[in-house]
Amino acid sequence: MHASEAKATTLVSTPAVSVVRIGIVGYGTVGQATAEILASHAEEIRQRSGAPLVVTRICRRTPRPSEAGINGAPVLDNWREVVGASDVDIVVEAIGGTDVAFDVARAAIANGKPVVTANKALIAQHGEELFALAREKNLPIGIEASVAGGVPVIRAISEALAADRIHAVYGIVNGTCNYILTQMERHEIDFEQALHDAQSAGYAEADPSLDIDGLDARDKITILARIAFNGAIVPAQVPVAGIRRVLATDFHYARRLDSTIRLVAAAERLKDGIRISVRPWLVGHDSMLAKVDGANNAIFVVGEKAGTQMFFGPGAGGNATATAVLSDVIHIARHLSRQQNAPDALTGFCNRQPLLLAKQSRPLGWYVRLTVADRPGILAQVAEAVARENINIDSVIQEPHMHKTRLSFVVTLEPIDEATALRAVHAIDQFGFMLEPALLLPIASELR
Amino acid sequence: MHASEAKATTLVSTPAVSVVRIGIVGYGTVGQATAEILASHAEEIRQRSGAPLVVTRICRRTPRPSEAGINGAPVLDNWREVVGASDVDIVVEAIGGTDVAFDVARAAIANGKPVVTANKALIAQHGEELFALAREKNLPIGIEASVAGGVPVIRAISEALAADRIHAVYGIVNGTCNYILTQMERHEIDFEQALHDAQSAGYAEADPSLDIDGLDARDKITILARIAFNGAIVPAQVPVAGIRRVLATDFHYARRLDSTIRLVAAAERLKDGIRISVRPWLVGHDSMLAKVDGANNAIFVVGEKAGTQMFFGPGAGGNATATAVLSDVIHIARHLSRQQNAPDALTGFCNRQPLLLAKQSRPLGWYVRLTVADRPGILAQVAEAVARENINIDSVIQEPHMHKTRLSFVVTLEPIDEATALRAVHAIDQFGFMLEPALLLPIASELR
Repeated sequence: MHASEAKATTLVSTPAVSVVRIGIVGYGTVGQATAEILASHAEEIRQRSGAPLVVTRICRRTPRPSEAGINGAPVLDNWREVVGASDVDIVVEAIGGTDVAFDVARAAIANGKPVVTANKALIAQHGEELFALAREKNLPIGIEASVAGGVPVIRAISEALAADRIHAVYGIVNGTCNYILTQMERHEIDFEQALHDAQSAGYAEADPSLDIDGLDARDKITILARIAFNGAIVPAQVPVAGIRRVLATDFHYARRLDSTIRLVAAAERLKDGIRISVRPWLVGHDSMLAKVDGANNAIFVVGEKAGTQMFFGPGAGGNATATAVLSDVIHIARHLSRQQNAPDALTGFCNRQPLLLAKQSRPLGWYVRLTVADRPGILAQVAEAVARENINIDSVIQEPHMHKTRLSFVVTLEPIDEATALRAVHAIDQFGFMLEPALLLPIASELR
Repeated sequence: MHASEAKATTLVSTPAVSVVRIGIVGYGTVGQATAEILASHAEEIRQRSGAPLVVTRICRRTPRPSEAGINGAPVLDNWREVVGASDVDIVVEAIGGTDVAFDVARAAIANGKPVVTANKALIAQHGEELFALAREKNLPIGIEASVAGGVPVIRAISEALAADRIHAVYGIVNGTCNYILTQMERHEIDFEQALHDAQSAGYAEADPSLDIDGLDARDKITILARIAFNGAIVPAQVPVAGIRRVLATDFHYARRLDSTIRLVAAAERLKDGIRISVRPWLVGHDSMLAKVDGANNAIFVVGEKAGTQMFFGPGAGGNATATAVLSDVIHIARHLSRQQNAPDALTGFCNRQPLLLAKQSRPLGWYVRLTVADRPGILAQVAEAVARENINIDSVIQEPHMHKTRLSFVVTLEPIDEATALRAVHAIDQFGFMLEPALLLPIASELR
């Protein structure tokens, strides 16, 4: 059957529904911002949805006695009273984590309700199963908010670039790390001090591990890789290095190299498969990545036909994230108001075939910072270890006025594949003068 | 009726259609790239559409005898044989201009076929009428490709930020001008030379007026303003200044001010209405706008809740533009394959209420370049004209080694509203020593 033939019989006008009803499970920063924007921007949202959107039920862990949510919606303590309710058309999952959130999403789908979530851990870990359940029920799942807050990178890859082949997706996807790194750069302070500042300013959690160890970024690049490369991958497959080992000294040396340091999540298609990682990179001051300051995010998408695109904006925060949640809610409501279910554009999550991971890497330049107890002959030994792997040294930099018992210097290596660079660094780490393992950062010369 | 109640009766599964058929009217750069990507990326596109997309008819002005298009689709010389054909489900309008293109789009809609177009002039000029016709027929119109080539800024504003209130949209939307300006900057050449280079490199037309006089950018900011601010506006309402008057000298002075020059299209919401314009701006080297090089585009969108987002990428070229055309085609096909019509998200085009234009402007710093026949007392007279309007001078810069009979110097003014700055410049233009009218550029200190 062709589309035109089908149209004549089935694309009939249906009466518009009078209201689309939202249930919110989890009433923290994102849940509350979502409810507040639904109330404060009701008229704009009605115009763009084709029907008014109303919050009818809210679930929070510890509802206060006789609390009423936005517009008098009851505040409940049992999420089953939201996902199973006959007066809820769309479920917003905003509790976070992967345990209860997974139950909530599954139950909502089982009850025939589309789910919208900002939960990157849930989608990175359980996206495949959720999308399979949703497909059985012909339901969409909205995950725009799961990566880069309000920045519409999920839509960009899955819809705007739907006709293209993606070569690479990379960028800054963790605002906490970027805030810490830009503070270290700007104020020439240590990691511990910058982390403390970030916690005081509300940019880092009391337990900052998920952010600073790169685990949050790993969830996000897993989701982006899945969508961009259309195959199965889970976070545990992604090599990750956080920013704990980056020192104030490294920013001194970076500056000498007309560069700065950014935590970059990257996935690219190489000849033998997908290369994916989360780690700090040395990025040139003249790159756009270096211009991404504070808690902002920036994601580059390289398409075969579309070329290199970049998407920038606040990567977190209740309002920005709620905007993304609501973009999905409105998309679904726009269809429900016409008595349709929105089609699901995230085909990558329905493909269970594993992404083939690359064994090779592209040749990259490398920044190697060594922290040593000074003595004669160190540079000769380092240079020999590097030469043994047939790697050319690009530069050696040593800042003056350093403590001789704990001295840092930097060697930059000419482009070479990662395995070779690692072998050289491993040999260097065995030397008795090394006070801690060398810090190895790729140099992002081709990244914008 | 609520959405859930409707669902039980009407959201039934319908048999999937076997193919969605595309007719292409206009077979130049964009039309051909569209057909080629449909053929070369058929499998990816099928996965993301839910059905194969096949080009069944092509119309070009001068078909060669017995020419067959992609996959053997007939190449016709009469567009009516495409828009009226029973074997066409979606019409891609790729002829450009506003005359025949308007007829093609209207006829396609009248025949019940969704239209996808890259034609900014058509949409800026006739979008309101086309969207009204489409709404009567319950049809979507795809216009992603009409602004910024492959960069999905239409989707970003109309879908990703659907819940938000937009404060401002601004950026670089004409790749030709940006190419010329970056060439002038990099190679320290005159406008005429840079234009000639751009024409040789295929970045500028033989008749470059639409680009360099800002008319193309004006069409694009008209479309963006319409979507962002949800009201009627036509290109003729937008004040426009192109880049013909920018000299190599201006880049010298810009560099002295740690800045460069970019053609910026901007629309922002002020207290008394929308302020909209296309003109060259002085932008700081540390801004992202200054990093936008060559034929790239970059659009900033400032949302009340989402904050400032930026979208960057190639703004023109057959492949990039075709990617955007196909994003709309796939979106529509994804619905047709489920026997639905895609809902229209571009509500701004259906609102016939005119956008209120602001009478006031924000206070801005100003760059004023004067070209004079040197004689004593010039600066005193200029300073007096500026002081008469109660404007503070921020700096006076004069490059050495200039010809005394034709000497340029620059005065920068502290932030002041545009009307006041214009009065001062108008007074200066009356002086006998002025060899040409002063060049007045706003200084984009707050722009990223």
